[in-house]
Amino acid sequence: VNTESTYLSKAEQLDREDPLSSYREQFTPPDPGLIYLDGNSLGRLPVRTAESLHEVVTEQWGNSLIRGWGEGWMDLPRRLGDKIALLIGAEPGEVLVCDGTSINLYKLVMAAMEHQEGRRRILSDELNFPSDLHVLQGIVHQLGPGYELDLIRSRDGMCIDFDSVRDATDKKTALLTFTHTYYKSSFVQDMAGITALAHEKGAMVLWDLSHSVGSVPVDLKTCRADLAIGCTYKYLNGGPGSTAFLYVRRDLQKKLQQPIWGWLGSKDPFQFGTLYEPAENIRRFLVGTPPILSMSAIEPALDLHLEAGIYALREKSLRQSEFLIEMFENWPAGLGFTLGSPRSAGRRGSHVVLRHPEAAAITEALIGPPEDRVIVIPDFRAPDNIRLGIAPLYNSYKDIYTGMQRIREVVESKEYLKNR
Amino acid sequence: VNTESTYLSKAEQLDREDPLSSYREQFTPPDPGLIYLDGNSLGRLPVRTAESLHEVVTEQWGNSLIRGWGEGWMDLPRRLGDKIALLIGAEPGEVLVCDGTSINLYKLVMAAMEHQEGRRRILSDELNFPSDLHVLQGIVHQLGPGYELDLIRSRDGMCIDFDSVRDATDKKTALLTFTHTYYKSSFVQDMAGITALAHEKGAMVLWDLSHSVGSVPVDLKTCRADLAIGCTYKYLNGGPGSTAFLYVRRDLQKKLQQPIWGWLGSKDPFQFGTLYEPAENIRRFLVGTPPILSMSAIEPALDLHLEAGIYALREKSLRQSEFLIEMFENWPAGLGFTLGSPRSAGRRGSHVVLRHPEAAAITEALIGPPEDRVIVIPDFRAPDNIRLGIAPLYNSYKDIYTGMQRIREVVESKEYLKNR
Repeated sequence: VNTESTYLSKAEQLDREDPLSSYREQFTPPDPGLIYLDGNSLGRLPVRTAESLHEVVTEQWGNSLIRGWGEGWMDLPRRLGDKIALLIGAEPGEVLVCDGTSINLYKLVMAAMEHQEGRRRILSDELNFPSDLHVLQGIVHQLGPGYELDLIRSRDGMCIDFDSVRDATDKKTALLTFTHTYYKSSFVQDMAGITALAHEKGAMVLWDLSHSVGSVPVDLKTCRADLAIGCTYKYLNGGPGSTAFLYVRRDLQKKLQQPIWGWLGSKDPFQFGTLYEPAENIRRFLVGTPPILSMSAIEPALDLHLEAGIYALREKSLRQSEFLIEMFENWPAGLGFTLGSPRSAGRRGSHVVLRHPEAAAITEALIGPPEDRVIVIPDFRAPDNIRLGIAPLYNSYKDIYTGMQRIREVVESKEYLKNR
Repeated sequence: VNTESTYLSKAEQLDREDPLSSYREQFTPPDPGLIYLDGNSLGRLPVRTAESLHEVVTEQWGNSLIRGWGEGWMDLPRRLGDKIALLIGAEPGEVLVCDGTSINLYKLVMAAMEHQEGRRRILSDELNFPSDLHVLQGIVHQLGPGYELDLIRSRDGMCIDFDSVRDATDKKTALLTFTHTYYKSSFVQDMAGITALAHEKGAMVLWDLSHSVGSVPVDLKTCRADLAIGCTYKYLNGGPGSTAFLYVRRDLQKKLQQPIWGWLGSKDPFQFGTLYEPAENIRRFLVGTPPILSMSAIEPALDLHLEAGIYALREKSLRQSEFLIEMFENWPAGLGFTLGSPRSAGRRGSHVVLRHPEAAAITEALIGPPEDRVIVIPDFRAPDNIRLGIAPLYNSYKDIYTGMQRIREVVESKEYLKNR
């Protein structure tokens, strides 16, 4: 049996051997003694982002003023999109950074439903992120009688299995839309299999990459995925509420028309013509003026990911989550926890879920400890999930060790009882 | 006849007497010798914005991390909205800062069209901002057969007169939507008259306040306006592409449902329920996670406007535009220019348009002068408009004098010919 001190020296050893360890210094340190295991919700601040944003504000906005639009701002949706494309297996000109995740979902689903005329059924699953499901409900409501949204049930509350998807996909199905890495359980869906299945039945597929991009490699091109969306404030470290992205496979771009006909999606916005004509490429999925401050913050972190390499990041993430799960499996009777994520590394994203009937109170104790104890920030998802996010760019094995030890302490000491 | 030197001493005198002159120091100075007359397109950077944004990035994002959502971020759409409400005659809880102007237009028009079931006609005018017209075209396309968009023609290319609006409004009209201050001519529409007319015919009204907010007082409450939208990067100095706002009169909020059902518009987003139920107040017009960096930049400038007072700002703006027009009227034969804005101060916003067949080349000469000449930044709008934006918070009378003198020099010297 491993003792705790074995895990400590193992963590230190793994940190010494970690080829990505230097990236940790690229992030501004929060208060000492804060262990951040929530990079799957809001990624940390890269040092260069603070510097570069200062320059954007004082030099570009402060001095270039309106001329900034001609000096790079107008190209940001496309320039950032091309960098994200490298992380998700897309090509230049297939990805744009714009608007929010839910808005991009709305735009692409509406476009797909118009294109799939005659088919009126959308298929998703009950474990999809609520905002995605809400947006789909709104679309079905808006499109009116005959349109329906069917949600595949999960057998175990953790995964959606392929057979259920196959059984649920029929010739009336216009669109399948799933999350690639599930927000609650970290389950990774079979993108290649489901995309092929959908195409066989004449349906389109849209993937939400929010919990994958930057930590789990995605290969949209090989899968021939039709559409995708995602956010940039989780593993991508774009900052709170940073601008989202969308992907439309090149051959579909001219066939699809999104519903919000803003001027920056038009062929020649600066003609100021009254009649809308959509741009002939990915730009037609833009709406209005890009939010430059929020968008500029995305680029430095994207560069860090590209430097580190998405496959190296995945390798470290898997090694780290295995280390975490090993520690958990060594806890006596799991301390009352069960694993809320798939045990198989290949079906799991970069966060690990531990379930406990007292998860809410335990999370509270972790975030607000006594003064002589380390602050550990995971997040809680009702009813009983503690999500432990591993961001391989900046989390050390020692972070994981310390976080897990602190969880053990909180549970064994029953310190959490005061938060019930 | 006034000589140029008379105008110079008059400008200096007016600057000395200007009760708002100290606000000029609240903005970071661009390069010396740059005269910025484009605050109607992108407002300048307030000193405190740069400072406050630095704190948001390093302290809030860098250190509070995910906890930032509980420490003020989540309230930003409403908190900023309540401040904008004070500038446009709305009440607390009637305005939200969120998304982009065109997206907000889309959301509110779609909501209005669903509410006005049975009426299928939208009325606007050919001088409205192209993105607004594009969005309306997209909506009519999407809603399908029977829906129509009618654009009132302008008699003079500058204004839309009340009689035309009255003649065009019928019992089939669901919605009238106009700009309050027109982007090209600066014409200010009769909000009270048109809103009353619309209501008499059972139509709703939506106002685009983009070119008014922060420089022209708006009184939505007294007019009983139904809906409004606007941007925050012009007179409000929120930064390039900063988040937009929307207004929904309180009694309409529960009757209207917008089409993009994102989680932050739902009753209790952090329940993570799969079924969407809209919030019961203005929050139902939210979609997704607010872009905190771009939004935080809006607040310091809003505070400046509230301190200065919108009526004091309007008074200065009118005095400044009268000064500008007086200088123009003193030019021999107008130097070939004609006034592209209404002559009457009450029908004019805070920018003044001068039209000239060589407007494009003249603008180019102003922005890229020889080294020993001042840079003047106005903007050009096809085919022949030079927009001179007056931002009373930071533009001095001397700015206007210098800008106008430089225009005169460029035209009289024919310096612009090299740009033809």
